[in-house]
Amino acid sequence: MILPSIRTAPSADGVWHSCHLLPDGDPAHAIRDGALVVQDGRIAWLGTAAALPRAFAGLTRHDAGQAWITPGLVDCHTHLVYGGQRADEFAMRLAGADYAEIARAGGGIVSTVRATREATEDELFAQSAARLQPLLAEGVTALEIKSGYGLSLEAERKQLRVARRLGEACGVSVHTTFLGAHALPPEYAGRADDYIALVCDTMLPALAAEGLVDAVDAFCESIGFSPAQTERVFAAAARHGLPVKLHAEQLSNLGGAALAARHRALSADHLEHLDEAGVAAMAEAGTVAVLLPGAYYFLRDTHLPPIDALRRHGVPIAVSTDHNPGTSPVTSLLLMMNMACTLFRMTVPEALAGVTVHAARALGAADRHGLLAPGRVADFALWRIGTPAELAYWFGRNPLAAVVRQGRVFPAAGADFNGGRP
Amino acid sequence: MILPSIRTAPSADGVWHSCHLLPDGDPAHAIRDGALVVQDGRIAWLGTAAALPRAFAGLTRHDAGQAWITPGLVDCHTHLVYGGQRADEFAMRLAGADYAEIARAGGGIVSTVRATREATEDELFAQSAARLQPLLAEGVTALEIKSGYGLSLEAERKQLRVARRLGEACGVSVHTTFLGAHALPPEYAGRADDYIALVCDTMLPALAAEGLVDAVDAFCESIGFSPAQTERVFAAAARHGLPVKLHAEQLSNLGGAALAARHRALSADHLEHLDEAGVAAMAEAGTVAVLLPGAYYFLRDTHLPPIDALRRHGVPIAVSTDHNPGTSPVTSLLLMMNMACTLFRMTVPEALAGVTVHAARALGAADRHGLLAPGRVADFALWRIGTPAELAYWFGRNPLAAVVRQGRVFPAAGADFNGGRP
Ligand SMILES: [Zn+2]
Ligand SMILES: [Zn+2]
Repeated sequence: MILPSIRTAPSADGVWHSCHLLPDGDPAHAIRDGALVVQDGRIAWLGTAAALPRAFAGLTRHDAGQAWITPGLVDCHTHLVYGGQRADEFAMRLAGADYAEIARAGGGIVSTVRATREATEDELFAQSAARLQPLLAEGVTALEIKSGYGLSLEAERKQLRVARRLGEACGVSVHTTFLGAHALPPEYAGRADDYIALVCDTMLPALAAEGLVDAVDAFCESIGFSPAQTERVFAAAARHGLPVKLHAEQLSNLGGAALAARHRALSADHLEHLDEAGVAAMAEAGTVAVLLPGAYYFLRDTHLPPIDALRRHGVPIAVSTDHNPGTSPVTSLLLMMNMACTLFRMTVPEALAGVTVHAARALGAADRHGLLAPGRVADFALWRIGTPAELAYWFGRNPLAAVVRQGRVFPAAGADFNGGRP
Repeated sequence: MILPSIRTAPSADGVWHSCHLLPDGDPAHAIRDGALVVQDGRIAWLGTAAALPRAFAGLTRHDAGQAWITPGLVDCHTHLVYGGQRADEFAMRLAGADYAEIARAGGGIVSTVRATREATEDELFAQSAARLQPLLAEGVTALEIKSGYGLSLEAERKQLRVARRLGEACGVSVHTTFLGAHALPPEYAGRADDYIALVCDTMLPALAAEGLVDAVDAFCESIGFSPAQTERVFAAAARHGLPVKLHAEQLSNLGGAALAARHRALSADHLEHLDEAGVAAMAEAGTVAVLLPGAYYFLRDTHLPPIDALRRHGVPIAVSTDHNPGTSPVTSLLLMMNMACTLFRMTVPEALAGVTVHAARALGAADRHGLLAPGRVADFALWRIGTPAELAYWFGRNPLAAVVRQGRVFPAAGADFNGGRP
């Protein structure tokens, strides 16, 4: 696996011409026959080619070949860093094995915790990089990576360190989320409150002090942690000045979204069982609804998230992969756009906003990602499509021509795109 | 778009070592620590590395890097050659447009027929090649391509000629199917029997005489053609000595599968509404059941094909993309494996057989495709996976390291695989 290296990629500085622009992902704001200027790795100007200021006339020219240019995609909810995979468990389940048989065969989340703990940091990096690669190949320029398969200080630290290293190695913006309260580790069986104390009083202070934590998350669910335990985690986050987000209302309605909203959470995620009161609370707090159609599909869920209520209340909706080995082993954000449309009946503009502006907001990074605007770091994707709707319509197809990450050009593998070289 | 060219690809001749083999797709028949010998573009031998005959010791060695080697994948039901796409129609529908509005905006199958008729042969080739590329990038070495968007002699000929050209240009085995009886062209509105006469008495004789037809298909459905009209098409196929297949029981049960079985059809496809009598008839005739989870997903169908009955009667089950612009705009056979498992609850060995041995049988090419065996043309795929189940477990991810088509090596784009060069 070749990791695209930020060090050897050519600069995107210059004028990108022969392109159409989708500055905020909304087809209604499209700029046909556009141009985009990059200087010192930042967007200096964008608009119609006809309006290109004379001042930029002498710069290097990059022929975009009639590509559509969107903001780099943002995958705002992933569990990308873990050891092993669960393919044989998937096969066993389909062959009729029940929960007990799978547990006896060493399956379930415990197997991922074990593999994550046992892997060296370098092994974890290599395995995770192989899963990051398909996301980058689809134009992702920013993503969230959660911990939560270590469940001990050392192993959670290892996950978050790998997440940071992936960002540096690939020139992709990685936002780390500490999810110590993901599951109860086997050694704490029957002692959930003690484990939450470890998360709040030992793990989080240490990891935050090391600069490894950008946000804090918990799994608030009947099979996870209670609202009271979640409150303790959020209070600890507040002590460290860290924003929060929450896995809420996936399997049942515990009022997690409203709880998250009370803590001004960046996002509440999953939300299949969210009720109208929860929606209203999120709207009031400006909390983003992160919908995860990959898990909905993979679990054969039939309980749709309340899209209409979210629309009515004006809650921003993001869409993400939820990449994880147990319930969403997907590494395609484009496929998630198609599933958001096909399964959730989201519109194409909603799906586009869901992986750009609203996803950036779910990261607390609306000022840096999800939008093409002067002054921002040059993070954008070039697509070989005739109409923006193609990004959500095709599935199992990647029309990326090239991606610019942090001012560097990465042509799509196998594309005839010449890397935007003049 | 760079089309992989059969002319410049290096030869696969030699000993492929450091690999595991899945000769017929069945994990129970896996050969760990295997070797595979290619001579003059054909498989000469395969087995455990320890058993490699001395006679091959002097040949070129290809290090497979611990890849798993499977037969090349077979996509046995596609409508890959057509003009245009229907992404904006997809967006309109999600935005709430009804059938009449979409028709007024020029949407629906009529729009694809129009775009297919208007495209030049070279335009159709370029558009179709861009859709073939992702299939090839996933290790497909043989596929079926149907006509059926031309609906006139000239336009159906153009589709089938493009299908043949794609096969020659890319070194992939293309099996053409004449599907003149796909839909009623606008100029025959209200005169379906007259159109069937054109299909049987004019189109098929001409296209068969030109060597453009490997099999004959029809769309037998309440919104398509009746069983009686289908019979006329099958009778015409028999006059030309051509095998038949049928789009049957997708939306309702017209007894199409039993009709197909009476004509010893290679396959009956879709089958969501197939009943037990139809299953029994297929079993008796050896007709393959081709299941198309992409269309099931995209149409949000909830009526599952009768998998258990197919199993009980021993009907071979294939899985395919059904790639088409209206109901299955998917170009990933790996994703179809995941959907066959996730949505249809097929097992992993069933999904693997469904895109190899049984898919080959649905093409009438079980003697040439879907199996690694001495004497066969070297068509195989190398996968960077730890266990065969990974091919169905991940979705939106392509672990292909390289594919060998017709004895030539095509490394995966972006892979660090060195093309098997010594
Ligand atoms: Zn999650
Ligand atoms: Zn079809």
